[in-house]
Amino acid sequence: MTHNIYTATRIRGLSVRDIRFPTSLESDGSDAIHPDPDYSCTYVILYTDTDFKGHGISFTIGRGNELVVEAVKSLSHLVVGKDLKDIYEDFAGTWRALTSESQLRWVGPEKGVIHLAVAAIVNALWDLWARTEHKPLWKLLVDMEPEKLVSTIDFRYIGDVLTKEEAVTMLKEMQHGREAREERMLTRGYPAYTTAAGWLGYSQEKIERLLKQFMAQGWRHFKIKVGQDIEDDKRRCKIVRDIIGQDMTLMVDANQKWDVDQAISWMKELAPYKPLWIEEPTSPDDVLGHAKIAEALKPLGIGVASGEMCQNRVIFKQMLQAGALNYCQIDACRVGGVNEVLAIYLMAKKFNVPVCPHAGGVGLCEMVQHLQIWDYISVSGTTKDRIIEYVDHLIEHFKTPRKINHCHYLAPKVPGYSVEMWEKSLLDYEFPYGAKWNALFDEGRYKDPRKGPPPWVEHRVKGDIIHR
Amino acid sequence: MTHNIYTATRIRGLSVRDIRFPTSLESDGSDAIHPDPDYSCTYVILYTDTDFKGHGISFTIGRGNELVVEAVKSLSHLVVGKDLKDIYEDFAGTWRALTSESQLRWVGPEKGVIHLAVAAIVNALWDLWARTEHKPLWKLLVDMEPEKLVSTIDFRYIGDVLTKEEAVTMLKEMQHGREAREERMLTRGYPAYTTAAGWLGYSQEKIERLLKQFMAQGWRHFKIKVGQDIEDDKRRCKIVRDIIGQDMTLMVDANQKWDVDQAISWMKELAPYKPLWIEEPTSPDDVLGHAKIAEALKPLGIGVASGEMCQNRVIFKQMLQAGALNYCQIDACRVGGVNEVLAIYLMAKKFNVPVCPHAGGVGLCEMVQHLQIWDYISVSGTTKDRIIEYVDHLIEHFKTPRKINHCHYLAPKVPGYSVEMWEKSLLDYEFPYGAKWNALFDEGRYKDPRKGPPPWVEHRVKGDIIHR
Repeated sequence: MTHNIYTATRIRGLSVRDIRFPTSLESDGSDAIHPDPDYSCTYVILYTDTDFKGHGISFTIGRGNELVVEAVKSLSHLVVGKDLKDIYEDFAGTWRALTSESQLRWVGPEKGVIHLAVAAIVNALWDLWARTEHKPLWKLLVDMEPEKLVSTIDFRYIGDVLTKEEAVTMLKEMQHGREAREERMLTRGYPAYTTAAGWLGYSQEKIERLLKQFMAQGWRHFKIKVGQDIEDDKRRCKIVRDIIGQDMTLMVDANQKWDVDQAISWMKELAPYKPLWIEEPTSPDDVLGHAKIAEALKPLGIGVASGEMCQNRVIFKQMLQAGALNYCQIDACRVGGVNEVLAIYLMAKKFNVPVCPHAGGVGLCEMVQHLQIWDYISVSGTTKDRIIEYVDHLIEHFKTPRKINHCHYLAPKVPGYSVEMWEKSLLDYEFPYGAKWNALFDEGRYKDPRKGPPPWVEHRVKGDIIHR
Repeated sequence: MTHNIYTATRIRGLSVRDIRFPTSLESDGSDAIHPDPDYSCTYVILYTDTDFKGHGISFTIGRGNELVVEAVKSLSHLVVGKDLKDIYEDFAGTWRALTSESQLRWVGPEKGVIHLAVAAIVNALWDLWARTEHKPLWKLLVDMEPEKLVSTIDFRYIGDVLTKEEAVTMLKEMQHGREAREERMLTRGYPAYTTAAGWLGYSQEKIERLLKQFMAQGWRHFKIKVGQDIEDDKRRCKIVRDIIGQDMTLMVDANQKWDVDQAISWMKELAPYKPLWIEEPTSPDDVLGHAKIAEALKPLGIGVASGEMCQNRVIFKQMLQAGALNYCQIDACRVGGVNEVLAIYLMAKKFNVPVCPHAGGVGLCEMVQHLQIWDYISVSGTTKDRIIEYVDHLIEHFKTPRKINHCHYLAPKVPGYSVEMWEKSLLDYEFPYGAKWNALFDEGRYKDPRKGPPPWVEHRVKGDIIHR
């Protein structure tokens, strides 16, 4: 019997959970702007009228995850009860319905909480589609007719730089040689770099130990966090260069710490350490600011990278138009899921800017490998100047985690989008009800949000008003 | 006894309510992108250790308001329990704490749901400050030493176009003649225009009747909604021009309906009706798109206006840098409340772009009159090319609503920021518990969100999973 998308006919339910990992206890993920992230995700399951389910997530760093969970609930009526046929035969229309709901769009539009929630739902829809086709997501994308793939994209607001017809032509032009590229992804995989040695909260000893360990494993590209203190940044860049030497790649990441002019002067001081790029030098909303920084740093051989906080395709469009990015760092959840990410890859291709996805977090590595492998096979046809971020934490929670082979991501073979977590992980880490969280509350390592009066007072009609 | 801010010493509680008005029943507020808005607000009250309270709101259009309410709760720990002295002596720092909370900022940053919530809280803090000083907000601002006023602004990410020192100098230069300008605002007021005749859902008869009625009242500036259908837009522009003649002002508003090139060609067709500006021609995120449209429409004498959906000072900064705006439409809630709006006014002054605030909605007229009057007295010193939007609905819910005198906003005299609503309105329109909502549910005019199984399924540890 052939399974396909029409085996399941309807979305009959959606569940959403607030999953958080207490990563701040170890300073994992700490940077100049986010000193204490608890890597988290909004975890969505779509239920159908068969055993097929779709799993989708949106990554956050702790507090605020509850808002994305609530936003998923507010959006859920737009998919629950819908026929899969209607959803997938006009996927761009489905996406538009989610992002442009006539009242909800006011609290966006297409940005922040509401767009992260769209991503979780849309990612689950893609996972479901790939599962029902018995293909990993990258293979679903690679095998799709160019017209069909392009039909999933909402071109609103990007028509001035990319039309549907151009996108179809781009994809058709890359069909030649795709079998060889597919084979390469399955056997050799896609090159990766590691950020795991460079968190801001790590001691010198820990950085050195981790770098040596990674080098022994064959890693050749390393990223560290900067931006809190110039002297400390120089010290840490020197530690890294002293260990990795001059031939390996160093990248630095300021996580939006600086003003525009400050970014330029700061990076001039770090230029002797020859970073390949400065990532997120300033506000992710500042297209013109990034363009100014990129121009100023070009003579120093330092590129500008950004994207993990770029809210949607409209900001990416402008970043590309303005020459503001030398490396385009798509994120699998920040924009509205796969459909919008595809649009960004195609625009990047048009402007000849390499895509180097943001990963790490929770499930980001799992997701972006699919997208980047599709890019290699069907869009750019090259890995030149391209590399996927890799961080090795939290891997144990995923049923089919990314596989790294000689510092390359191996193309996944399991159907879907690879974000399904073990039920035990979901039970343990649901916030604030999971067993692990209860233990942390009991140990006094975190404040239990369920205890004591809330700092806010909720009015209810005819109810009492309680002051703190 | 002199009351001042230190009479109250501490924020001891915060309440937040989901207030919605069923405006969609009458097509009030309908436009090309928002056909059925239910004008709503997130309503915050800050309680102190005295009888002084601060009232603050953030405007939304219905669904999604629940997310802003939740976000206020998530942020509330940053103000509840704090000393007023600490808040107001470093108001920029307080603002930064709210907008850059280390985990919550991930679901923004400084945009969408989380920034609307910041606005509600920050607006309440300003209302409280003005009340404790026994001054309307505009007067608090006007009387404040330039250094003190500028100290409330967070200059992060805008230092490349405006420094603290420049801002102080600007304000000092305008001190001369301020008494006369203040007097003018109290006696004559600030000029206004009306949008109330131009909603997309209105019939020809209703448009004509309303226009004649407004003209009889002395109104000379009218705005209508466009963007859904070009032939219908021509027809409606003609109706308006036929009634108002060639000397009065027509403005048109597309509410983000178009792509960049579409905006240009559409407006070329409407040029014969001589609109002063096209408002929100495309995505509010598209700085370069607005700049392209502004350049193309300049020879036709049509300006570009935008701002009600511009998410923060960084987008406004770029809009001004790129020459993308001929009219800067600040919003009192979209950006992070008064502190950030002040920064935008000062940047607009630097680029010599007139500010014409977005109003209407719920409480927007009440708030922007304070800001614009401050601009007239302390920043621009002129009303040339400047005008405040005016819509006359929902006025009955406010304790001290805006006062219109011969189509001018009269400077408010009551202490505070003018958004306090009658307790009865709050009780009646709290969603979904208020009496008015219960009646609408009973009449079957709205779906009661409290009835029937939710379309989503919430997992709980060891709980059941329910499918729909």
